[in-house]
Amino acid sequence: MTKFRFLTAGESHGMGLTVILEGIPSNLSLSEEYIRIDMSRRQKGYGSGGRMKIEKDSANIKSGVRHGKTLGSPISLWIENKDWENWTTAMAIEPVNEKDDIKRQTKIVPGHADFPGTLKYNHKDVRNVLERASARETAARVAVGSICKKFLSEIGIDIKSRVISIGWEKTSVTNVDQINWEHVENSIVRSTNTKEEQLFTNVIDQAKKERTTIGGVFQVIGFGIPLGLGDYIQWDNKLDGKIAQSMMSINAVKGVEIGNGFNNTEKYGNSVQDIIIPNSKDERKFSQKTNHAGGLEGGMSNGNNIIVNVAVKPIATMTKPLPSVDIISGEIVEAAYNRSDICQVARACPIGEAMLAITLTEVVLEKFGGDSIQEIKRNYKAYISSFKEYGK
Amino acid sequence: MTKFRFLTAGESHGMGLTVILEGIPSNLSLSEEYIRIDMSRRQKGYGSGGRMKIEKDSANIKSGVRHGKTLGSPISLWIENKDWENWTTAMAIEPVNEKDDIKRQTKIVPGHADFPGTLKYNHKDVRNVLERASARETAARVAVGSICKKFLSEIGIDIKSRVISIGWEKTSVTNVDQINWEHVENSIVRSTNTKEEQLFTNVIDQAKKERTTIGGVFQVIGFGIPLGLGDYIQWDNKLDGKIAQSMMSINAVKGVEIGNGFNNTEKYGNSVQDIIIPNSKDERKFSQKTNHAGGLEGGMSNGNNIIVNVAVKPIATMTKPLPSVDIISGEIVEAAYNRSDICQVARACPIGEAMLAITLTEVVLEKFGGDSIQEIKRNYKAYISSFKEYGK
Amino acid sequence: MTKFRFLTAGESHGMGLTVILEGIPSNLSLSEEYIRIDMSRRQKGYGSGGRMKIEKDSANIKSGVRHGKTLGSPISLWIENKDWENWTTAMAIEPVNEKDDIKRQTKIVPGHADFPGTLKYNHKDVRNVLERASARETAARVAVGSICKKFLSEIGIDIKSRVISIGWEKTSVTNVDQINWEHVENSIVRSTNTKEEQLFTNVIDQAKKERTTIGGVFQVIGFGIPLGLGDYIQWDNKLDGKIAQSMMSINAVKGVEIGNGFNNTEKYGNSVQDIIIPNSKDERKFSQKTNHAGGLEGGMSNGNNIIVNVAVKPIATMTKPLPSVDIISGEIVEAAYNRSDICQVARACPIGEAMLAITLTEVVLEKFGGDSIQEIKRNYKAYISSFKEYGK
Amino acid sequence: MTKFRFLTAGESHGMGLTVILEGIPSNLSLSEEYIRIDMSRRQKGYGSGGRMKIEKDSANIKSGVRHGKTLGSPISLWIENKDWENWTTAMAIEPVNEKDDIKRQTKIVPGHADFPGTLKYNHKDVRNVLERASARETAARVAVGSICKKFLSEIGIDIKSRVISIGWEKTSVTNVDQINWEHVENSIVRSTNTKEEQLFTNVIDQAKKERTTIGGVFQVIGFGIPLGLGDYIQWDNKLDGKIAQSMMSINAVKGVEIGNGFNNTEKYGNSVQDIIIPNSKDERKFSQKTNHAGGLEGGMSNGNNIIVNVAVKPIATMTKPLPSVDIISGEIVEAAYNRSDICQVARACPIGEAMLAITLTEVVLEKFGGDSIQEIKRNYKAYISSFKEYGK
Repeated sequence: MTKFRFLTAGESHGMGLTVILEGIPSNLSLSEEYIRIDMSRRQKGYGSGGRMKIEKDSANIKSGVRHGKTLGSPISLWIENKDWENWTTAMAIEPVNEKDDIKRQTKIVPGHADFPGTLKYNHKDVRNVLERASARETAARVAVGSICKKFLSEIGIDIKSRVISIGWEKTSVTNVDQINWEHVENSIVRSTNTKEEQLFTNVIDQAKKERTTIGGVFQVIGFGIPLGLGDYIQWDNKLDGKIAQSMMSINAVKGVEIGNGFNNTEKYGNSVQDIIIPNSKDERKFSQKTNHAGGLEGGMSNGNNIIVNVAVKPIATMTKPLPSVDIISGEIVEAAYNRSDICQVARACPIGEAMLAITLTEVVLEKFGGDSIQEIKRNYKAYISSFKEYGK
Repeated sequence: MTKFRFLTAGESHGMGLTVILEGIPSNLSLSEEYIRIDMSRRQKGYGSGGRMKIEKDSANIKSGVRHGKTLGSPISLWIENKDWENWTTAMAIEPVNEKDDIKRQTKIVPGHADFPGTLKYNHKDVRNVLERASARETAARVAVGSICKKFLSEIGIDIKSRVISIGWEKTSVTNVDQINWEHVENSIVRSTNTKEEQLFTNVIDQAKKERTTIGGVFQVIGFGIPLGLGDYIQWDNKLDGKIAQSMMSINAVKGVEIGNGFNNTEKYGNSVQDIIIPNSKDERKFSQKTNHAGGLEGGMSNGNNIIVNVAVKPIATMTKPLPSVDIISGEIVEAAYNRSDICQVARACPIGEAMLAITLTEVVLEKFGGDSIQEIKRNYKAYISSFKEYGK
Repeated sequence: MTKFRFLTAGESHGMGLTVILEGIPSNLSLSEEYIRIDMSRRQKGYGSGGRMKIEKDSANIKSGVRHGKTLGSPISLWIENKDWENWTTAMAIEPVNEKDDIKRQTKIVPGHADFPGTLKYNHKDVRNVLERASARETAARVAVGSICKKFLSEIGIDIKSRVISIGWEKTSVTNVDQINWEHVENSIVRSTNTKEEQLFTNVIDQAKKERTTIGGVFQVIGFGIPLGLGDYIQWDNKLDGKIAQSMMSINAVKGVEIGNGFNNTEKYGNSVQDIIIPNSKDERKFSQKTNHAGGLEGGMSNGNNIIVNVAVKPIATMTKPLPSVDIISGEIVEAAYNRSDICQVARACPIGEAMLAITLTEVVLEKFGGDSIQEIKRNYKAYISSFKEYGK
Repeated sequence: MTKFRFLTAGESHGMGLTVILEGIPSNLSLSEEYIRIDMSRRQKGYGSGGRMKIEKDSANIKSGVRHGKTLGSPISLWIENKDWENWTTAMAIEPVNEKDDIKRQTKIVPGHADFPGTLKYNHKDVRNVLERASARETAARVAVGSICKKFLSEIGIDIKSRVISIGWEKTSVTNVDQINWEHVENSIVRSTNTKEEQLFTNVIDQAKKERTTIGGVFQVIGFGIPLGLGDYIQWDNKLDGKIAQSMMSINAVKGVEIGNGFNNTEKYGNSVQDIIIPNSKDERKFSQKTNHAGGLEGGMSNGNNIIVNVAVKPIATMTKPLPSVDIISGEIVEAAYNRSDICQVARACPIGEAMLAITLTEVVLEKFGGDSIQEIKRNYKAYISSFKEYGK
């Protein structure tokens, strides 16, 4: 197997985003339409700003696919910026004339990359930082994630997400196996049911009235996970660690827990372990009735659903800007205001799905090797069959 | 700079743990005594089991240091298992005679690596898994972390930790700049003050009475962090993501938040951003009065303290074992019981410090390059001085 | 510093090649025109086939550069295939209609990736392999290399290349400091002088008359290399090893030597070491009169020119095709013939330059750290100045 | 699969060498005796110096193996320095008293790491460099390689090596399938036959008489290689590139060729390709009668023997030392003389075998995935069986 890896490139208001994704096996069916549908899910959500109306993202496959099937060679994607025509001078690759009068952006937004980014990179224009630090980049990750999901579906893995809290309102539904996912998919806040939709949208409305922003927590779930992904052998092989990194890397995310990570710290040990019982119908011969561990034990998947909760902070740009400073004058000013959202938690869900899909693809390829989709499925099936010998 | 990296090896009841650490620059002062002191901090804590009495860990430096200074070549450490004499047959490297009658361990502990580990690696003896999946390995990480701390201290970085909750009891102290760290260091539960020590030990006593276990949350803080470590350029360069991985990789950890990650999701955006104000005394010319962001914005350090909270689950082995299964007979049995702790939160603190030190060392070396401690300090100082030009 | 890395994507007759290059510092001047000039050097050479007339490559910068300067964010490039209009169906991303009658290519070319590639990836059409295995991909590497050269020039590193043998004819010029590089640049075979140009073109003419192909050896030289790049600390940090990998990865390359690698094995040790003598004018206080070692000792640059010789085999597709097999019928057939060259040694030179530039950029960034070109130059200069203290 | 990786540590005259090797699957039989035999092969060879008499290396397995089988967890090895008692002060970890009068080594050996190493790492004592840069480190690689060979033997891969030239004398035997490997193994110069042994030892005797050193070329061969290891997808996945790096990283190696890399550049293309013919007995349905390509096409193994030739320079320390400089006085002096060899080519052979074994293990694990030896063999066999469908 080639090493699984990918890179994204592109500025928020540049020509577009570029992706190269390497390590997807050959002979997987793939189309631009399939990717587009997943990308569109990042573009809706109650409390979203104006930009989403512009975006209508889609990704052009530029290589790595022929006649509808992956070749095994690197897949490159091009995600055009539909708004580029308004930025051709401000974001020009080549030098511009002085008369073009490109205004340096010198006001810092607190909570963004602006302040550390300009100092680190020795930039005199905050735009040189914010263009790449922007959450726009996550569109590229969603495109990568959609390809990974397609791959994972070949061995029965399915990834879902929902919002479990907005501000101070929280979901009361904990059993992820009984959720109506069609409802979630159609909900403007990716809530589990209609009642919670009302609670969540109320919070967002209040934040809007205050001309501020509000955060929340979303949940990503992996269904159909084979036991034994990840490892306990070395700290950086642990699947829970990899998932934590991938989620924390999403813009505005400040917390990650596996299963009921923080809540379980308040309970006695005998109530938060997942008892193992004999089960002749389970391919592993044993099963667990509960899933406090969120599907991960000892850095490995244990065959249960992987459940990850992810905390999204209220975003930093607001219609009523915070006080900040101008890096040239050194004076206090109002922070810059860019078109932005009140609440991004629902929009962050597909990004969380993408990051889980990416992380699982990496460990699935490590576990099962293989260069074509046929080879990987063959290795996967033989492994699952080998469980019959367990304990013998 | 050589690439910073390290590996640990060793089983819990084997001969000992081995470490190789590469990328520490030359000419750093280092002694075994220095490492030993840090390692001993992992070995105390109210509610700890019997093993700690055996351990009294120390690390022998086997290479990479000459006449008290690092050479720049790989540092290897040997952490002897003081209890090895009782395990020479059960854990022998070479095959044993049948008459030695090594008993296979076939009972699974729920919540451990036992179940997925034996299936993944095709092992018939649970001991083959638990010996490496054990938290014993973290002694090696603490040793590595102590060297990293020594390195970081050369550019003014200091790392501390404390327990902020045990079970349902939580700290009320939030300002980390006003903590009496000597108190914390001497506290048997690494609490911030005497009152909280009482609350925390009460919870542990109750858990002990119930013959079960209890978890909690610890906090790791990095002081003196230069602005601009980590990056927003690509998802896997983000320092918050790296920290999340490193913390989640600690045994029994199930949650990580930067600053007030989860709590901030319940608040309005205007109350959780850190306003930037002019400050002629700050080398960066500006400063922030609050630190809701936990010192990380846009995947980079922003010059404030890095603050990370880490959720530790109640551990899985208990004096009153949970029901489980025998992998041979397929019958329900009591889970195996190994000598163990009631509460590991305080003991986990030095491991958290180590993981933060390791992660920061990686990004410091990336940022400042260099092969000798002199070269790195020179590059560091020149960078800090360059802030004078900020905005010009 | 962000980790230096890059990926290329794209098939030979697809829409184009995509590149993402990460880790180039901010504030480096860069233009498309600069890259284009370097890319055009890969497209000339005596004995080259028809494709070069089509290509006229150029790279569009799609991100990572603003107003003529690098941002520090990933640079993406798009290298359009000028011949794409003739391949829109044969290489379509989406499935094609049966009536389009895309002919599977089932004849293997011996010496290419065709045979192992189709078996490994489970492909039924050799085109699915050859499109990516083609040397067309090296156009992307040359584009990356040109950016790396621009970066390296900021600290005084310059990279050149010439052909030192074609078939059985070899150069007699060994002193690389006295070569007229303008001559080489203008020579159709990148020969060192007019006499050798005649010898080399004669060999190519003979090969053409025989309707076959011919190989040769090219030499890449790095001038102005600072002492201390690379490392002896661990096998995979050694700069000579990294250079060997980068050169051997070029299509059709089968051998690499540093300095006079193979010839020096035939000589006594006292005649092939480079004696060190005091030299008050040299910044390092000492110098070497000879350079048998090719600028690398102990896996590190020693401050002399880095000299690498690279063996290019005669290419595999010929106007008089070799016998081969059809993978469907299993019968012996003539190998497929694609438009191709008689001799690619001169064309391979810029690719070798690119690979050396890429490898040196990696180790320069490791050694000097830094995020902006100003920071890297500052660290570089301070390091060079520190040599004054050598031996004190 | 855990990621395959290893690190070595240790100075030449320190306490010993440490190794950690991660990624070897579980349930592989392994013993110290097995490793010892391979290590002893590095310690003989005509023209070897006095140190080999001291060494008599062996490796103690410290972890990763239980009751004769690998656990899947990291394997650590300890290779004691038998001469340590003579170096306890000169190489002490802790600071020494001034009265111990440790003499700084300040004379540089030309051709060694001494000069660049001391400047790079800011060392005032050449010993701080030479202790790690020494070829002593390769003992650790041979130990790692022996474990990799054991692993590879499970899927039928066998690795051999021989000397093919010493100085100006070259082997006349080219068909590696007809070599008497028992002869090679017993030969003091690892020659192919008695006649060549005479020629090679004559050259060494002459060099000894001249009080100088002599180099040569050795050949490493991989037999039983499955088709499809490595990749053409990205430059750094190419197996020939990886092999080139691994060989060039061996101390004193200055050149690497795959098959007849340099000689083939002098021949016409129609004489150096390997024609493919139908062959119903070959599992791949086709075979090649020749192996000019050295078993590698398009960056992948093609199922033929992998053949690599490696150029070893005459070593730098000689009984009649070269002129050099003293880094303190700045004066010309005689280079330091350490106990050393006249010719190391035969001794380098097992190191070359080790590096090929290491490289192949990496790509085998990538290709076949798996965590236990049973799983890897199952995946391997299913892949080989899939060739039956080739072309259908």
